[in-house]
Amino acid sequence: MVQISMDAYSLLEKVRSAKPLVHHITNYVTISDTAAATRAFGALPVMAHAKEEAADMAGISSALVLNIGTLYPELIEAMLLAGKAANRKGIPIILDAVGAGATPYRTREAARLLSELKISVLKGNAGELAALSGINSEVRGVESVSAAASSEEIAKAAAKKYDCVSAITGKTDVAASASSIYFVGNGCALMGGVVGTGCMAASAIGAFCAVEKDYAFASACALACFGIAGELAAKKASGTGTWKAHFFDEIAGLDGATVQKMLKVRRE
Amino acid sequence: MVQISMDAYSLLEKVRSAKPLVHHITNYVTISDTAAATRAFGALPVMAHAKEEAADMAGISSALVLNIGTLYPELIEAMLLAGKAANRKGIPIILDAVGAGATPYRTREAARLLSELKISVLKGNAGELAALSGINSEVRGVESVSAAASSEEIAKAAAKKYDCVSAITGKTDVAASASSIYFVGNGCALMGGVVGTGCMAASAIGAFCAVEKDYAFASACALACFGIAGELAAKKASGTGTWKAHFFDEIAGLDGATVQKMLKVRRE
Amino acid sequence: MVQISMDAYSLLEKVRSAKPLVHHITNYVTISDTAAATRAFGALPVMAHAKEEAADMAGISSALVLNIGTLYPELIEAMLLAGKAANRKGIPIILDAVGAGATPYRTREAARLLSELKISVLKGNAGELAALSGINSEVRGVESVSAAASSEEIAKAAAKKYDCVSAITGKTDVAASASSIYFVGNGCALMGGVVGTGCMAASAIGAFCAVEKDYAFASACALACFGIAGELAAKKASGTGTWKAHFFDEIAGLDGATVQKMLKVRRE
Repeated sequence: MVQISMDAYSLLEKVRSAKPLVHHITNYVTISDTAAATRAFGALPVMAHAKEEAADMAGISSALVLNIGTLYPELIEAMLLAGKAANRKGIPIILDAVGAGATPYRTREAARLLSELKISVLKGNAGELAALSGINSEVRGVESVSAAASSEEIAKAAAKKYDCVSAITGKTDVAASASSIYFVGNGCALMGGVVGTGCMAASAIGAFCAVEKDYAFASACALACFGIAGELAAKKASGTGTWKAHFFDEIAGLDGATVQKMLKVRRE
Repeated sequence: MVQISMDAYSLLEKVRSAKPLVHHITNYVTISDTAAATRAFGALPVMAHAKEEAADMAGISSALVLNIGTLYPELIEAMLLAGKAANRKGIPIILDAVGAGATPYRTREAARLLSELKISVLKGNAGELAALSGINSEVRGVESVSAAASSEEIAKAAAKKYDCVSAITGKTDVAASASSIYFVGNGCALMGGVVGTGCMAASAIGAFCAVEKDYAFASACALACFGIAGELAAKKASGTGTWKAHFFDEIAGLDGATVQKMLKVRRE
Repeated sequence: MVQISMDAYSLLEKVRSAKPLVHHITNYVTISDTAAATRAFGALPVMAHAKEEAADMAGISSALVLNIGTLYPELIEAMLLAGKAANRKGIPIILDAVGAGATPYRTREAARLLSELKISVLKGNAGELAALSGINSEVRGVESVSAAASSEEIAKAAAKKYDCVSAITGKTDVAASASSIYFVGNGCALMGGVVGTGCMAASAIGAFCAVEKDYAFASACALACFGIAGELAAKKASGTGTWKAHFFDEIAGLDGATVQKMLKVRRE
């Protein structure tokens, strides 16, 4: 993989100085981890899902992250209210389509959010985004088991179908818009076994998109920084449990020289 | 305690190779820990509590774990829907009766789940299972304070009353069926002070029961592996916080020689 | 800051020996951390938010912690039911007004809890308590950005307005009643970047108020022990992730000599 010059670190610095408020309406499994990751990147997380305040909270935020990991009807209603407020304000919405394809309900509700809201970045694993793009795939719970196309093809299809940036996490992460596609080689095998990495990656994307309007570029930078911190944490960890503790430290500790040296991003 | 030969490790290997999907409808306190523990054991966790998909998710799963730690009416309804789908499919249901005995609502709803569903393994601490078996006990919140019988007697009474396997965690864990009873001496004092160990133990039982139809044996193996990983983590920890990080590492790192050497299981 | 003699440690010992049950109705982001912190301090946490049992659970508890971090109407209803039971029983209620001032809904519901219940300790950051005391402030999500008065002034205003103890966390924590005010200099900068420290501090206050009726004194002791454990953890941590793991260890490991030596509490 060719390493291209790309100032991921300056975008991270922008997050750290702007401290954007990133509103999450998210699942109850990784809600603590996504808040911690958002904070480690230098942004301010807020988790607020009451219909009574979802729109108000989105209205004072700089990005909105929607995650359907433990969806239920009232949560989707809150997402729609917050999402419409976000669209009115012009802030980016990141949709993490957790488990789309696993049950009809998840697939249908993800499609509904994509239909009723202007989503900026549709994020998921290969199986989830394939399911939403009309490509055959198997999603077991929240795990992508197989997909009848490459991540590149799925990302392009999803970006086209939903007129948004698509971001697929996996061994190589892919972020695609109508005009460009990025491949991110950062990250490591250990991370694939940690519950919550996908969700935390969506928070990273939210934080970066809050300060950069080129959402494909911002997503690639976020995923690269995320992956680099993950690699650094893996060097200090003896497994997934200790990895997670080190991961938050490494995110907050990322410096420009390290990011520049370890960055593995290719643009096509 | 006499150490008997028992291939707990081969069952763990079966979990790791089959990667069974273990559907959880569980509490919001330890939902992240139980997902992480399930993953560390090599199984795939999915947490899905919407009534709209509970049955579908159970239908693609290999085991169902129900935990009433933060129960409320809609969650119980989802448990009943998922449970009926699990019963139709013939996959095991593990019920963790968290806090039964502490309030009338908990005791009543646990009994209702036991009455309307065919539960495979009823799990809890001594006080909780005593409360459900008509034996005097005191449960303070989710903590067993006292019970008017030994864990062995309570386990036998619960197994008989509900025609299922019963599993009681404590200093010595007990897993009982109508025909056999196992005593597991693994684990350590530190674990008793960690919020979530009981819930994670239920996930371990779920993962093992997903690949082995002798649920008493599977429960004993799960609790033994769980306890061994806990003992190994305790050697590296300076308290409950660092213990938890190491615990997930140690679960995933368990090897056959270690399990065989440390196993403390007795069958009667 | 003058160090005064104050037996914070003997109060901690009282918590450890009494093991009071501390009922929480709290947010879903830090629910796991607050349970773990409560346990580390030696108290027993229980998280129970169903309207069907909220009053019963409060009725067997020694303190009630209400936290509006992820409030929604049914949760507030449960808080009112539990709170009224707590008032009837005469056990202390700690209200953590997370995000008050950020949206009208939060401010209104916090005020409603303060109006319908007899709150013992109103806890928050400077912005949150300013918002509830009619002092100008900016709260971004759950973060205090600015307030038009000092923490001391805000604490006094809140204590007066709501006839309760007020506790404001920050660089220096403040606990004020009508007759006295405490300043706690323990804690460190790292803690400000950890999601959940504020919520865990409220749990500490709950555990200490469960065993000591002078709630301003109990709050100051709780915040001092909390801060000391945080300072000790910071010495072993390389960032916010490893800090949290060490923090729980250090809470449980606090001994009298260390607390006495490190204590930074001033009373006026």
